[in-house]
Amino acid sequence: MNSNQSFITVGKSPLRADARDKVRGKGIYIDDMRLPGMLYGKVLRSQYAHARILMIDTSEAERLPGIIGIVTGEELPFIHGESFPDEPLLARGKVRYMGEGVAAVAAVDEETAEKALGLIKVEYEELPALFDPVAAAAPGAVRIHEEMESYKGKPLVRPVKGTNILNHVQFERGDVNQGFAQADHIFEDTFTTPAQQHCSIEPHGSICLIDKDDNISLWTNNDSPYRCRIEIADALHIPMTKVRIISAPYTGGNFGGKGGLKAEACAIALAWKIRNVPIKVLYTREEEFCSSIIRHPSVIKIKTGVKNGGTILAREVTTYWATGAYAEKGPTVSRFGGISSAGPYNIPNVKINGYLVYTNTPVAGAMRGYSGPQTSWAYESQMDIIAAKLGLDPLELRLRHVYQDGDIHTATGQIIHAEGLKKCLEEVAVRMEWQGKTLGPNQGRGIACMERAVKTPFGSAAFVKVNEDGTVDILSSTTEVGQGSETILRQIVAEELGVPLNAVRKATPDTAYTPYDASTTSSRSTFHMGNAVKIAAADARQQILQLAGKLLSTDPVNLTLADGKVLDKENPVKVMPIAAVLGQSYGSSGTVLGRGYYFPEMPEGQETYFSSQVVFWLLGAHGIEVEVNRRTGEVKILKVYAAHDAGKAIHPDNVKGQILGGISMGLGYAAYENYEFKEGNVLNPSFLSYKLPTAVDMPGVVPVIVEQEHQDGPYGAKGVGETTNVPLPPALANAIYNAVGIRIKSLPITPDKVLAAMQERGEGESQ
Amino acid sequence: MNSNQSFITVGKSPLRADARDKVRGKGIYIDDMRLPGMLYGKVLRSQYAHARILMIDTSEAERLPGIIGIVTGEELPFIHGESFPDEPLLARGKVRYMGEGVAAVAAVDEETAEKALGLIKVEYEELPALFDPVAAAAPGAVRIHEEMESYKGKPLVRPVKGTNILNHVQFERGDVNQGFAQADHIFEDTFTTPAQQHCSIEPHGSICLIDKDDNISLWTNNDSPYRCRIEIADALHIPMTKVRIISAPYTGGNFGGKGGLKAEACAIALAWKIRNVPIKVLYTREEEFCSSIIRHPSVIKIKTGVKNGGTILAREVTTYWATGAYAEKGPTVSRFGGISSAGPYNIPNVKINGYLVYTNTPVAGAMRGYSGPQTSWAYESQMDIIAAKLGLDPLELRLRHVYQDGDIHTATGQIIHAEGLKKCLEEVAVRMEWQGKTLGPNQGRGIACMERAVKTPFGSAAFVKVNEDGTVDILSSTTEVGQGSETILRQIVAEELGVPLNAVRKATPDTAYTPYDASTTSSRSTFHMGNAVKIAAADARQQILQLAGKLLSTDPVNLTLADGKVLDKENPVKVMPIAAVLGQSYGSSGTVLGRGYYFPEMPEGQETYFSSQVVFWLLGAHGIEVEVNRRTGEVKILKVYAAHDAGKAIHPDNVKGQILGGISMGLGYAAYENYEFKEGNVLNPSFLSYKLPTAVDMPGVVPVIVEQEHQDGPYGAKGVGETTNVPLPPALANAIYNAVGIRIKSLPITPDKVLAAMQERGEGESQ
Repeated sequence: MNSNQSFITVGKSPLRADARDKVRGKGIYIDDMRLPGMLYGKVLRSQYAHARILMIDTSEAERLPGIIGIVTGEELPFIHGESFPDEPLLARGKVRYMGEGVAAVAAVDEETAEKALGLIKVEYEELPALFDPVAAAAPGAVRIHEEMESYKGKPLVRPVKGTNILNHVQFERGDVNQGFAQADHIFEDTFTTPAQQHCSIEPHGSICLIDKDDNISLWTNNDSPYRCRIEIADALHIPMTKVRIISAPYTGGNFGGKGGLKAEACAIALAWKIRNVPIKVLYTREEEFCSSIIRHPSVIKIKTGVKNGGTILAREVTTYWATGAYAEKGPTVSRFGGISSAGPYNIPNVKINGYLVYTNTPVAGAMRGYSGPQTSWAYESQMDIIAAKLGLDPLELRLRHVYQDGDIHTATGQIIHAEGLKKCLEEVAVRMEWQGKTLGPNQGRGIACMERAVKTPFGSAAFVKVNEDGTVDILSSTTEVGQGSETILRQIVAEELGVPLNAVRKATPDTAYTPYDASTTSSRSTFHMGNAVKIAAADARQQILQLAGKLLSTDPVNLTLADGKVLDKENPVKVMPIAAVLGQSYGSSGTVLGRGYYFPEMPEGQETYFSSQVVFWLLGAHGIEVEVNRRTGEVKILKVYAAHDAGKAIHPDNVKGQILGGISMGLGYAAYENYEFKEGNVLNPSFLSYKLPTAVDMPGVVPVIVEQEHQDGPYGAKGVGETTNVPLPPALANAIYNAVGIRIKSLPITPDKVLAAMQERGEGESQ
Repeated sequence: MNSNQSFITVGKSPLRADARDKVRGKGIYIDDMRLPGMLYGKVLRSQYAHARILMIDTSEAERLPGIIGIVTGEELPFIHGESFPDEPLLARGKVRYMGEGVAAVAAVDEETAEKALGLIKVEYEELPALFDPVAAAAPGAVRIHEEMESYKGKPLVRPVKGTNILNHVQFERGDVNQGFAQADHIFEDTFTTPAQQHCSIEPHGSICLIDKDDNISLWTNNDSPYRCRIEIADALHIPMTKVRIISAPYTGGNFGGKGGLKAEACAIALAWKIRNVPIKVLYTREEEFCSSIIRHPSVIKIKTGVKNGGTILAREVTTYWATGAYAEKGPTVSRFGGISSAGPYNIPNVKINGYLVYTNTPVAGAMRGYSGPQTSWAYESQMDIIAAKLGLDPLELRLRHVYQDGDIHTATGQIIHAEGLKKCLEEVAVRMEWQGKTLGPNQGRGIACMERAVKTPFGSAAFVKVNEDGTVDILSSTTEVGQGSETILRQIVAEELGVPLNAVRKATPDTAYTPYDASTTSSRSTFHMGNAVKIAAADARQQILQLAGKLLSTDPVNLTLADGKVLDKENPVKVMPIAAVLGQSYGSSGTVLGRGYYFPEMPEGQETYFSSQVVFWLLGAHGIEVEVNRRTGEVKILKVYAAHDAGKAIHPDNVKGQILGGISMGLGYAAYENYEFKEGNVLNPSFLSYKLPTAVDMPGVVPVIVEQEHQDGPYGAKGVGETTNVPLPPALANAIYNAVGIRIKSLPITPDKVLAAMQERGEGESQ
């Protein structure tokens, strides 16, 4: 722990590494990248939610001048997927959702490729389709993947044979039935959440080049080059060295949407057939909505038994996750959702069942806070229902139950540590004057908190190379997707090596060069990759001090590094720039290399794939003050108070930026965004019809950084950005209840729903 | 030492990594590389050998449609050079040789750029020019660099004030005057060598992109990305992290010619002015001849004192190296030439003076064997002169004096080790049946040997990353210039990690990713980078064994690696693939990283820049049988016997390839190539007029690999390729003498010269 350590750059907020490029429009994104002779690919997509493909006739399209090649799924006997490979590069045999790729065209330009799509004839035989996860989970339902039993998933993915359930997650502690029996009050509620789309400014894009020896080069805005590489190498049955993933220097937003194979799959499909030519596929906004990924719609049934005084005795949660046509990150979403379904609370008896269910809808996968927004919507809404019924203060009810260090996690049995959630709640309460401030008429306040596991346990690796002039290169596969990782990793290395921040660069990820990283997801980078670069930098530091010790005739333990120089701690006259240490040791040939691999220490015998032994928790609490218009149902957010536990904020301004961005996204999910399906068809796949909150919709926000240091985090840091959106929806629902006594259980909370609820009570203006 | 070790791939000759690509025309060279929006640059070159630039008028050229920009030296206040920076990117104030760049043009295509050159008007005031190094070295000669005293050279570069001598190299051991006084015979000879051009199939080429923050990206076929980076960063006064050198995947020949800044300088000059646009400069063959680099023409005076029995008592050598208009690698050439001027022989009294002299001729620099072909031409010719005079067997004279392990090197005072030269001579003698074979009329045989220091001491660094599936990536900045380094480095890593060769890849050098390497020159890579990758691989190996030991409950010392698996040496049942070791330790997150930095150990207090403490010597001997046509002077080479000391041949076929290639190049230098100057003008700057030996001119060759293992070399290896051309010219001259009694002292040995010498003796046919 470094509580009393004085830092050079850690804990400061230097200018972000990407600031200048972005402000000046200089950043290179995948759309800016062109290769000589590059072709452009477009994908013909299914108009059926579930149908057998009887025939594909590409002959007319092939005759169009400028068309170089057309590929269909039948030519690509590959199946891919992160933890439950079930997805072809293009549909084979049948389509499972509207928007699924059926054929892909490569042409000399996008317009020609687009034109060719209209000339491809496909005959389908429509099949019965399933859209609702509860119905799809029922025994005897039409099967979306008849061959599910043949899929080779990771060990912790547990399909239910003969059904559409591809993962059944179960956790149980104590005896819920006994708990319910001892309870004075039983609360049973069902909550629902809709789909949500990431709406990154930049769509998915990839350029793929495959030579005749199956060497694949893929330039892409995928968030995780190594995960991408594994998925491709596994799918195509080729060694990893044959797959080179090169990140675009910048990515215009991720939020979990840029994992897996999206535009990548289309570009690979074409390049596998058309060798030695780079082929670019860039998604349209409509493809972003219909053919990339979305947040899992869910149905959550939550039953809680409570004693009169408010002590929660038992909770049972059953969740249905509509994962769409393919597994994608669904198994992880449902697993993490399962672990935290009962909330971050000490409850002696807990039973959790989660069903990840195939549906004939666009693929659901990772999206910021994944599983958190769904589970917390349920448990945090019900916390206020309980408090209201029992006449308790909702904050007080939470503070009485919330985990603290040393507690046992009810779902996982793991001992809790570095838990700053109570402090988050307290900070929010203080800032919003929970005890004291009087609100006006139709005004109300709500609070909500959350936990989510970081992706765990997964490794991160880094190289550091010290240049002859004392500048430093970091080789790390963490991608800069707007979250600020480049700046934070540079800060950590600069801190460790005692060099100015601008002397440190981080190279763009490229699997041929930058070492392994599990993924840039789940707010794992600052902790995992932060540790890896710190270990690598410490390795280089040690070598520099050794060399300097020899040159200065001093025991290296007496030496330290600051401002690019070696200093003798006891003899300030002995100073030597790092460049001089290298030069005097090695002439002009001076260098020092560091390597670092970080993998969280696991208890003996623990599973190493998505263990329930969580290395750290993402924790936060939001408070909201609202004013409800009883006439229109409109809810005005007066202020948001948001506290998140960063462990240690390496770059506090960046943490605040993450909090503000998360609130915007949480607000969209809570009150604006409504991803509308009808029979598997997305009705609003554009920014004209899909309403996102904009800058003018942003409420005033009081961001609060809580720093409950983690013993294994770099300088105590944990991750923070992933879940800053999560507590907002239930906090908003709770505030509305506090203002006007109306309880909304299905997201989004639109004025319509509020008004309808008012009218049900005989209030509000009829339409 | 690994004499008795059984190797998996070391010492075998697996298919070269680049073989398939090259045979199929798939290799990517700089000319194949295009970037979006790329411009093309061309350079206007001086038609004067020495002249003041009075005025440059680019206005008409600028008006030509398609011209994007024109830059002249006045706009570029930078000076560059490896060890004695003296060269502007484009001429400033005056031109110093015909072919020097005066202005550069960037246009939308090469044709337009070329056209614009003709529209640029330059006014010159001609200055007296110097072409002969002896005349140029004289006190009072016109100065080519008036400002030489202000240049900041590396410590071992010693200019002589007020002259054109930019480096005076001196070595002295014993007392030559005393040696000469005790000698029975004094031999005084002067030998001369001409220029030679590398004639790589591929010319110099670079693409440069500089942004407004001075970040430089340079794609280039430079042989040494890090040396190139240092030269650029130093010249432009920017940190090294701002300069990114990206090697072209393949280079079509190097032979020392692709170091320094050639096309690089032109591309940088243009890109420094025209920002944010990539600009490509590709040399023409004429530019290769006139404006890249050439081998140093030299004049070598050698005086040797010998006792009656043949014991050599003293040798004094004075060499003039015509380095052309700029220093380039001249200081190193003259230094290495100095160290070995007296030959690889035990001579108690030695005095060496080398003068590196500016001349108004194209820049001379590194070329295969540099300094070796000049010095050995002198000392090996004179050895036969001595033998002839004293009636001794030339082989016997050499064997009596040649260094063996434990001897003291006469010029440097260093103790000799790993010296396989005697064995090279003996092997050649056995193969050519020196004692016994009877040759026909007009036939003769000659022998010659040589030594040259490796570039020393300079470092090499490498990373190794083991992938999750057990395949391995090498990150090393050694360039593949046709010499086979990629294959050899992969062999070493495969050997060390016990994985199949095809499981190992080597990434193309890129200074943003691959770590430091001094240079791919001087046959240093197998030894230096070989050690670096071996250390890096051993680092990774150790970690794998540690992990496996834990998993197999075995002490790691009992484990070894073979065929991609960990084996228990005593319990063959315990076998675990590397991929399984990683997977079981880290789930799907398994990786292991290795780092290696190799820097030869130097005696305490020794200079670290081109020390005279040589870490290993390049050694070899050639024997030649010829038949001389007394009527025409034509010399037919009947056979060449070539033995070179590889220490340990990692890839024997590659060593043999190096020997064959060297003999072709040595033969060109000995008998074909005549780089003709007239008043600074190159008269034959094309393959029509500059005669290279072709495949049909190749004699039969018996290549012999001598393996005198080096204690510090990887598996005992030293370098070998650099000097396989070196002994050929004196061996040829000695064979001609042996055949017809004619002694040629100036290269090349053309039929004209032989015939003229015959005629002088009253033989031969008059023309």
